[in-house]
Amino acid sequence: MAADTSAKIIDGKSVAKKIRDEITAEISRMKDAIGVVPGLVVILVGDRKDSATYVRNKKKACESVGINSYEVCLPEDSSEQEVLEYIASFNDDPAVHGILVQLPLPLYHMNEQTILNAVCIGKDVDGFHPLNIGRLAMRGRDPFFVPCTPKGCIELLHRYGVKIKGKRAVVIGRSNIVGMPATLLLQREDATISIVHSRTKNPEEITRQADIIISAVGQANMVRGSWIRPGAFVIDVGINPVEDAKCARGYRLVGDVCYEEACKIASAITPVPGEWVR
Amino acid sequence: MAADTSAKIIDGKSVAKKIRDEITAEISRMKDAIGVVPGLVVILVGDRKDSATYVRNKKKACESVGINSYEVCLPEDSSEQEVLEYIASFNDDPAVHGILVQLPLPLYHMNEQTILNAVCIGKDVDGFHPLNIGRLAMRGRDPFFVPCTPKGCIELLHRYGVKIKGKRAVVIGRSNIVGMPATLLLQREDATISIVHSRTKNPEEITRQADIIISAVGQANMVRGSWIRPGAFVIDVGINPVEDAKCARGYRLVGDVCYEEACKIASAITPVPGEWVR
Repeated sequence: MAADTSAKIIDGKSVAKKIRDEITAEISRMKDAIGVVPGLVVILVGDRKDSATYVRNKKKACESVGINSYEVCLPEDSSEQEVLEYIASFNDDPAVHGILVQLPLPLYHMNEQTILNAVCIGKDVDGFHPLNIGRLAMRGRDPFFVPCTPKGCIELLHRYGVKIKGKRAVVIGRSNIVGMPATLLLQREDATISIVHSRTKNPEEITRQADIIISAVGQANMVRGSWIRPGAFVIDVGINPVEDAKCARGYRLVGDVCYEEACKIASAITPVPGEWVR
Repeated sequence: MAADTSAKIIDGKSVAKKIRDEITAEISRMKDAIGVVPGLVVILVGDRKDSATYVRNKKKACESVGINSYEVCLPEDSSEQEVLEYIASFNDDPAVHGILVQLPLPLYHMNEQTILNAVCIGKDVDGFHPLNIGRLAMRGRDPFFVPCTPKGCIELLHRYGVKIKGKRAVVIGRSNIVGMPATLLLQREDATISIVHSRTKNPEEITRQADIIISAVGQANMVRGSWIRPGAFVIDVGINPVEDAKCARGYRLVGDVCYEEACKIASAITPVPGEWVR
């Protein structure tokens, strides 16, 4: 695919491998120096197949770098109180350094806010606690943890040597898990930010002013080539299924950004989800 | 002054009076209905004259609407522990509904973060606690309190019937107390926001795209007429002294926005600080 495009394809997989190697070395040093091995607990409630896959992948990722991982799988009909008791015990457990509650929870009988707020902020590795978000927003404060997807976006910018300070950045989407924290992170790096969302009247005009585009909106191919300033650095977080009879599954995955058009204009762009194999 | 300008002058004093009247009525109703009178504590450490003036004005404002106000004046050399003990006692006092710690604190021997974080968030009427800021940033969450200056800016937009949803808004400045929370508030109202700050390379170009401008940067007359889109609604939070031999004090106050130029282009603008007398 790369042959007929002008944009560099951002190779997230290779960056991820490099980061995992760095973490492996760091954990090994930490174990030698102070005898501590980081521990992550993942709490899964119910038996959603996609959630089980995510949890399995997290476990694998932990194993590959030397993090101890613990899994708590609770039945769908567990009470909110039971989940809260597990969280309280992990909050107090010195062998546990991070607690992830896999979302979505079975919401008809438990309150997501109540449960997420129960994780002590020093172990809130998801970074979704409002206290962590508040610290992320404030100058002179630092969050304990930063939500992983926007942190990954900024990491790609850093690893590709993109200067952020003073650059125009547009974040498309303002979700609590990607768009909003991505904005706060870019702000901390002194980008000049505009936020495009569903109520924005002229998203194309605003997006075209950006040196850096992060899209996390969940709309297949919404960002067309004409939205992109020549030479922009484009990170597409969207993973959207579109019908495609030619695919065995009956659908294929595309991003928020129309890749075929964008790759002729951007200086660098993340690949179509699942298509980039080294 | 209004005669030779095209912009409407935003009359914050009259809006403030109307709000005070509404609050007076609400407090009276509350007293009758549930027998509760709101109580505000202001904690002042040291003897800065400007701080004493601010505290006196808050006391007066409370009295004028029927809020019970309590003042704690501590000597400059009070320990951090003493201040924390006062805060703890007010956190537990059911007659106290709001706690304001007057800033700046004498910082050489106490930590501002430690002290502000000690105020329980349900009584953090300043809205500066990171948990309140986090809740302000997150969709689906609500802060207990919102910082007063940005809240006042949004209130002016509402009271002047300015539609915010879908409008382009530029916030100039990104301080924890005005710029950043103003951005989060405008975001909650579905404006499309750009944030201009000291590292922004083309502030004039970006500002000129805005239907709504909120400036809180502390730079005298920085925003020139050419920065303003014809018809924009301009709220200037800046209060900056500039030397002026013609004034008895040797200086006069100006905003961040060059009023003489802006008033010919904006549809509405806040007056030069201190100059607007009905």
